[in-house]
Amino acid sequence: MRKLRTIEMNRLSVEEFREADKLPLIVVLDDVRSLYNVGSVFRTCDAFRVEAVYLCGITACPPNAEIHKTALGGEDSVTWQYFKNTEDAVQQLHDNSYFVYSIEQVEGSTKLQHLGDHLSSISSPKATSSEKSKAFSPTAVIFGNEVKGVKQHVVDMSDGCLEIPQFGTKHSLNVSVTAGIVIWEFCKAMLNE
Amino acid sequence: MRKLRTIEMNRLSVEEFREADKLPLIVVLDDVRSLYNVGSVFRTCDAFRVEAVYLCGITACPPNAEIHKTALGGEDSVTWQYFKNTEDAVQQLHDNSYFVYSIEQVEGSTKLQHLGDHLSSISSPKATSSEKSKAFSPTAVIFGNEVKGVKQHVVDMSDGCLEIPQFGTKHSLNVSVTAGIVIWEFCKAMLNE
Repeated sequence: MRKLRTIEMNRLSVEEFREADKLPLIVVLDDVRSLYNVGSVFRTCDAFRVEAVYLCGITACPPNAEIHKTALGGEDSVTWQYFKNTEDAVQQLHDNSYFVYSIEQVEGSTKLQHLGDHLSSISSPKATSSEKSKAFSPTAVIFGNEVKGVKQHVVDMSDGCLEIPQFGTKHSLNVSVTAGIVIWEFCKAMLNE
Repeated sequence: MRKLRTIEMNRLSVEEFREADKLPLIVVLDDVRSLYNVGSVFRTCDAFRVEAVYLCGITACPPNAEIHKTALGGEDSVTWQYFKNTEDAVQQLHDNSYFVYSIEQVEGSTKLQHLGDHLSSISSPKATSSEKSKAFSPTAVIFGNEVKGVKQHVVDMSDGCLEIPQFGTKHSLNVSVTAGIVIWEFCKAMLNE
């Protein structure tokens, strides 16, 4: 099995990326402290052509040399916006009719392996016919601080919580790994439509 | 939706982890350079209760302070083994009847969203009835160097290649994010059985 050369991967230029159809998903970072994690999330959002990243609170913004080390340019292709308060980001998402999930371990969470069923159950009766033809309506996913997770107040404003089931000794996964898994699951819902 | 306290997550002790049933999956790191990535992979392998990690070539081994910073103890629960040559690791896996996937962008790869179908198609006719009752037979997944990927010679020794489809401007995802997505997909195959 021959490895592909970079030129054979048919990647987009930054200009092509901006014009291309996006996954109808906005990624919200609520007080993410590590520049490594912010950069890595940008790289993942580039790969899965996410609509936008909302950077909130203490989360650092591009341009930043440390973010660039792990984003590797993903911060130039993916649209982003800064909010001083995560609550304002959630309010704007609700004003624009986004369904907002916090990614957290909470009572009554939806386990990530059931995302497809959950997306079907929440599809809005108000959706236009073109929206209904997509795998899911516009959605946002909120990832929290490395130690504290998503703030309880932000969880309370959310429309649902998604949780990655875990079976080991540690209480959580790394933020950028969590984001990769969750965004992939949304990408797959679109690929399988 | 109330966030769970750590004590409510029912995580395992290291001793309980060692005794518990594992995902029949071995993760192989072929010349992974970054200690951050090695640690992060250990943390993910702990969360999804992976059988073992094989560290090959220039990949660093625990105990190591930098690995610990991102593994956060995952390196104490998950079984690991070091191989000077990745080829020896693949040979040992084959000797033990593991199906070996390289995670690479190659001609004719299996796209990750089709993993379930592929696992069904490769289930061994020699499998015992207890093995057949599981979602998949013992499997290994090889992740390569941050710049060079899995070595072509190691790809050539593999039984198949899995590829995460990507739609952006960059040619690849971060290694620890890639590992998270792939291991989650195997975990889900088991959860959905």
